Amino acid sequence: MLIIGELINTSRKIINEAVEKKDADYIKKIAQDEVAAGANYIDVNCGTMVFDEVETMEWLVNTVQEAVQVPLCIDSPNPLAIEAGLALARYGQPLVNSITGEKERYEQIFPMVLKYKTKVVALCMDDSGMPETAEDRMKVAVNLYENLTKAGVPEDDIYFDPLVKPVSTGDKAGLEVLETVRLISEKYPNVHKVCGLSNVSFGLPNRKILNQLFMVQTMTVGMDSYILNPLDKSMMGFVHAGQTLLGKDTYCTNYLTAHRNGLYES
Amino acid sequence: MLIIGELINTSRKIINEAVEKKDADYIKKIAQDEVAAGANYIDVNCGTMVFDEVETMEWLVNTVQEAVQVPLCIDSPNPLAIEAGLALARYGQPLVNSITGEKERYEQIFPMVLKYKTKVVALCMDDSGMPETAEDRMKVAVNLYENLTKAGVPEDDIYFDPLVKPVSTGDKAGLEVLETVRLISEKYPNVHKVCGLSNVSFGLPNRKILNQLFMVQTMTVGMDSYILNPLDKSMMGFVHAGQTLLGKDTYCTNYLTAHRNGLYES
Repeated sequence: MLIIGELINTSRKIINEAVEKKDADYIKKIAQDEVAAGANYIDVNCGTMVFDEVETMEWLVNTVQEAVQVPLCIDSPNPLAIEAGLALARYGQPLVNSITGEKERYEQIFPMVLKYKTKVVALCMDDSGMPETAEDRMKVAVNLYENLTKAGVPEDDIYFDPLVKPVSTGDKAGLEVLETVRLISEKYPNVHKVCGLSNVSFGLPNRKILNQLFMVQTMTVGMDSYILNPLDKSMMGFVHAGQTLLGKDTYCTNYLTAHRNGLYES
Repeated sequence: MLIIGELINTSRKIINEAVEKKDADYIKKIAQDEVAAGANYIDVNCGTMVFDEVETMEWLVNTVQEAVQVPLCIDSPNPLAIEAGLALARYGQPLVNSITGEKERYEQIFPMVLKYKTKVVALCMDDSGMPETAEDRMKVAVNLYENLTKAGVPEDDIYFDPLVKPVSTGDKAGLEVLETVRLISEKYPNVHKVCGLSNVSFGLPNRKILNQLFMVQTMTVGMDSYILNPLDKSMMGFVHAGQTLLGKDTYCTNYLTAHRNGLYES
């Protein structure tokens, strides 16, 4: 299970303020907290800083790496910001978030995946627009898989993101994602599957429970990586308990450790 | 989704006391509360009353039916108690808990399933002992399916129980059950799958979270009936949220109703 800490994102007001003030101590503390709570990767996203995203990405990457020595997930709609982040990333193998099946995006991002030998989030959408069904998503996934592996990207470096949409705008939105994860797991047992969770609950009350249960559901059908808030104790408790029930926790050791660390206190 | 309320069971101390005192009002109140909270069936189990189980079953069935008009799940290791319960059950189609692949048990219970045209829980164990793997369980399920359907029991009346064992005594205990549910759903799309949840967490701390997540996991792979405590608000909240995410809640109506009814208050 790969946990990508999502907190360092300038779409969050408190991070935006810290970035505006160049408050390195606050950014460092968040990065340290995320790693202490179990994040294997730290996502860095400053896509809201449209006028100086490249410089901000450089400052964030350097700042985070002064605090923690884990690999980064370089997350941006802007290829220049991604390249700036990758050029500075120095611990482990960075993860690019994301490539898609859109022609322009693919051509912009793909050379960086090769150049920096990165892992890559492959988002299941292309120029035909946002996918509806599992079948729509699989078409994109098959193309991306063919193109990436043909060019030498190892299966272990590919993280398919099925693109999670709100159940409030389509009853089957969750089901189609679950079906996609199941199909990808069957067809490509050696690639990974990743997603963010909060989209699923958009527009509904008690979003937390929907996000948590969707994590459990997607994990049950084969999702093995999440972009989430590792400081959310109950979410992390669900991650550990879910793994235990799926037979991935010898002698329930991780579950018992999580219990001792207070992850299950209400 | 079929919810079988599990509370009227003399292995629970408070029910045992009520039964000893013939406190009909208490039993009636529990039955009413279970139905109000969403139970479709009421389980009646007095297997601990070894000396007068038949008479106790009769009293319980009559008492519950004075309070609520839902069908009953007649639950006992003792065929005489099951027959006594079935003879008195008068609302809807009763559910027998359970038949197994054990020769003696099968021969005792099967005639009652036919005679009373009941639904039946078919437990995936036989004379070779407790199953370990999904394969073990499927062997029993296939035999039970063949025998029951050949004798004219409709697929819709069969509820396979994969037999849930503790993950504390075997890391793969949960996984084998999930695999069984998946295989049964594939092979027999028209039969049902049912289980109790609490065995999975036996011997571990924070059992509630494990029971809840195992409900979510089994539901994700096709379980469609549970024997549980419907008065447990957070469990019922998980049932509703799980269904919503699985595309079984048009316009999220049930989820929003559950929210308004306070199921998601912490």
